Amino acid sequence: MKNIKLTVAYDGTDFFGFQSQAGTGLPTIQETLEDAIYKLTGERLSVEGSGRTDTGVHAWGQAVNFHTESTIPPERWRPALIPYLPESIVVRRSEEAAPGFHARFSAKEKTYIYQFYRGETPSPFYRRFAYHVPYSLDTAAMAEATSLFEGEHDFRAFCAAGAKTKSFVREIFSCALEEEKPLLRLTVRGSGFLWHMVRIIAGTVLEAGAGKRRPEEIPVLLGLGDRTRAGVTLPPQGLILHSVEY
Amino acid sequence: MKNIKLTVAYDGTDFFGFQSQAGTGLPTIQETLEDAIYKLTGERLSVEGSGRTDTGVHAWGQAVNFHTESTIPPERWRPALIPYLPESIVVRRSEEAAPGFHARFSAKEKTYIYQFYRGETPSPFYRRFAYHVPYSLDTAAMAEATSLFEGEHDFRAFCAAGAKTKSFVREIFSCALEEEKPLLRLTVRGSGFLWHMVRIIAGTVLEAGAGKRRPEEIPVLLGLGDRTRAGVTLPPQGLILHSVEY
Repeated sequence: MKNIKLTVAYDGTDFFGFQSQAGTGLPTIQETLEDAIYKLTGERLSVEGSGRTDTGVHAWGQAVNFHTESTIPPERWRPALIPYLPESIVVRRSEEAAPGFHARFSAKEKTYIYQFYRGETPSPFYRRFAYHVPYSLDTAAMAEATSLFEGEHDFRAFCAAGAKTKSFVREIFSCALEEEKPLLRLTVRGSGFLWHMVRIIAGTVLEAGAGKRRPEEIPVLLGLGDRTRAGVTLPPQGLILHSVEY
Repeated sequence: MKNIKLTVAYDGTDFFGFQSQAGTGLPTIQETLEDAIYKLTGERLSVEGSGRTDTGVHAWGQAVNFHTESTIPPERWRPALIPYLPESIVVRRSEEAAPGFHARFSAKEKTYIYQFYRGETPSPFYRRFAYHVPYSLDTAAMAEATSLFEGEHDFRAFCAAGAKTKSFVREIFSCALEEEKPLLRLTVRGSGFLWHMVRIIAGTVLEAGAGKRRPEEIPVLLGLGDRTRAGVTLPPQGLILHSVEY
């Protein structure tokens, strides 16, 4: 029995999120990976992801693992799976992991990117991977607001209502904004994330850029812990799970 | 009667090219634009493009024009068409053109971009808009080969067999390669282009990068005028009609 780890990139546009929705017929990343492995090996096994990306959210470096009886050498899983996967899911790397490795529980750090596309009109080239902002932005205010999320905080104001969690405390190691025209990228690296957390942070930062709030409000919002006071949840297409560290 | 000019961007992936294929039921850019205008104004009119992009080819600045009885102010066509177009087609600009303006016959210059995506594995983010090159490339040789296409030449060696044209002579004003990681972009600006010309130039330049031919062969190939001696026609997804000058 081998424990195989895959690093997977996907265009989440046409999937109903990562997690399999058994019986619904809705395509998910997890099910598509499990089906590809079944077609390759005949094994019906369960793939664990580092986390569940929502409908429409993308990944560049999602990590998954599974236990297999197959004798396929670890590094050969990558090319072997290609014929069984759609072009929207790419296995970038395959390797053997320690027996106790678990994509979700072993994760130490994750990096998410939220992409804004700046242009007067939307772009057909970025519509799947960025949120279109047609109005002018104060990027200095956005950068300031962004940096104020760094550190250990109670993020309940930046978590979707109804999320089940024991603690809302998370540590953001870095939160930065960079412009790479025509994109504006918010990169957040942290120990873990609450449901919709990056999309709400991005929404709040965007409101600072639009002059609807001042950057100094961020510590206040974190202190209040009131979801209704923080920014809107931006749509999923701008969000990319960039990498997971172990 | 007004002559309206639109500047249109599109993701060509899901279209069977620009030109309408009446009666086939296959979606094309031209038909989709004409249908949108019909839904907006009730007018059944014909849209002229600067040229016919092939199936799967994209545009950032395709130019089209049409004559209309509608009283919609020229600059309002852009927002007015949005509800009637899919997200994959974006009217970036609308304006009134001189009565004699014709998107195809008035064109003086066109710029095409062919995009290569360099990465060990394909990227789900670039699969629609770039050609994946997993092997290493000699970009200096590619840049040298690229520059040798500049000038006025008989391009019959770089034209798809069966193309109907009076003359194969075209002038390339500039042909340049630039790296913007992870993309490598070939930008060709010229007076006009033959069928598949940019995709064959890109294929030939790529072969120079792969060490399969020397840059010095380009003038020889141009001189021979033999299609079978030039490079392969690269697939459409890497090609973008960037702009048309009048």
